[in-house]
Formats: sequence, C-alpha cells, structure tokens
Amino acid sequence: MDIKRIAKDTTKVLVSYLTYQAMRTVLAQLSETNPPLALWLHHFSGQGTIQDGELYLQALLKENQELAFRIMTVREHLAESVTEFLPEMACTDIKQANVGHRRQQLERITQLTTTDASPQPEPVQDSESSLDNLPG
Amino acid sequence: MDIKRIAKDTTKVLVSYLTYQAMRTVLAQLSETNPPLALWLHHFSGQGTIQDGELYLQALLKENQELAFRIMTVREHLAESVTEFLPEMACTDIKQANVGHRRQQLERITQLTTTDASPQPEPVQDSESSLDNLPG
Repeated sequence: MDIKRIAKDTTKVLVSYLTYQAMRTVLAQLSETNPPLALWLHHFSGQGTIQDGELYLQALLKENQELAFRIMTVREHLAESVTEFLPEMACTDIKQANVGHRRQQLERITQLTTTDASPQPEPVQDSESSLDNLPG
Repeated sequence: MDIKRIAKDTTKVLVSYLTYQAMRTVLAQLSETNPPLALWLHHFSGQGTIQDGELYLQALLKENQELAFRIMTVREHLAESVTEFLPEMACTDIKQANVGHRRQQLERITQLTTTDASPQPEPVQDSESSLDNLPG
C-alpha cells in the first residue's frame, strides 16, 4: 500500500473540492451583491474544468482576474478553518459507517436464514431496532 | 460562510475518495493473487456507484460480502494512516498554488504591457526565471 502516493492524490482531490466550495461561497455572496456576475460565474463554472481546481483557476484568471483572486483567497481561508477537523471526522465517519454496513449485512443474512428455516418465536432483528439511526 | 456544513460535505467527499483508493488497493492485490476476481471487481467498480462510497459498499455487500468487508477494512486503515497528513499538505499546496497563480498572472500582465509599449532593454520576466519550477 503506497501511503505516500495515496496521501498526495487525496490532497489533490481535497484541494480541488475546497476550490469548488470557495467558488460556491463567492457565488452565494455575488447572488446578493451582483446577480449578473453571479450568473456569469455560474455559467463559467459549469464548463467542467472545476474538477481540477488549478486548471479552473488558470482559466478563470484569463477571464476575470478579480473573481479568481477572490476564490483563491476564500479557498486558502477554507483550508485553514476546515481541514483541521477532517482527520477525526473522516476516521469517525468511516468507523461508524463500517459498523452500520456490518450490522445491516448481519441483519440481511439473519433474515434470509430465518425465512429459509421454520418460524422463530423471537426474530434476531428485534434486538437491532437502533439500526434505523445508523449511517448509510 | 458555513464552515460546519462545508466540513461535513468535505468529509463525505474524502470518505468516498478513500473508499475508492481502498478499492484500488484491493484490486492491485487481487491482480496478483486472483486475476479473475480482480477483473470482476474492476467491472463492478466501473458502474458509477463508486462516486458515493456508502452506496458502492451497499451494492458490493449484496454481490460479494468478503470483498466488501476487505475494502471496508482497508479504507479504515487508510483513514488512520493518511488523513493526519492532509491538513498540512492541503494548506501548503493551496498557498503554493495561489502564489504560483499570482506570479503567472503578474507575468502575463507584464508581457501584455511590454508588448504594447516600446521595446524595453531588460524585460521584467527575466527576474522570474524560477517560475517554471512553481506548481500549476
């Protein structure tokens, strides 16, 4: 498992996603202050390059430098205020989701087994009523 | 700027991407140990649900429980070993990329200006020869 390469690839995805969120933040601000410019940014950002944050900014710099600089400033702020929470949130979410998947699978298998066998007085899934509150 | 919502959305994207990287890791292992199963997983994972890690695992659990459990274990390990580096890597990458974009823009504007004006004995971009080494 190449942890270093995976960390690098994940950072690239993360940076592009934060760039997208910065664009959405600026878009929300513009829709209050300058609707025509908001509409222009909305159309520009729908052209596909937003998948790669750097290509998107390179293209935007050629069309509207001020907007590009604004999105760059916002994504830097987002990186500083959001990323510190990600390690714990991601680890917790994955552990909880994995527990949820394993319980659902156990429930599914148990249901299949009890359907195949003769009726049971006390179905196993009754003790799993908290399943509905589990993620995914 | 709704930092809490953005952190939550970013975590979801991060978890799905780590699930994708876990699938790729298992795929690489299988291509050594069990090529037919690797081919099956490759086809299964190309059906689009991989965009949402939890939907992908739910679908895979119905088809091949063992593979799904294996990917779940790998993504948990990835989250523990990769995410701790992400805050610093993302902040550094964004800062460096922003500096790069600003320099390139400055260079572009300067080139446009010097092209418009009469020839200069010492073009400004000569002092920016390290630009080639800057990120995207």
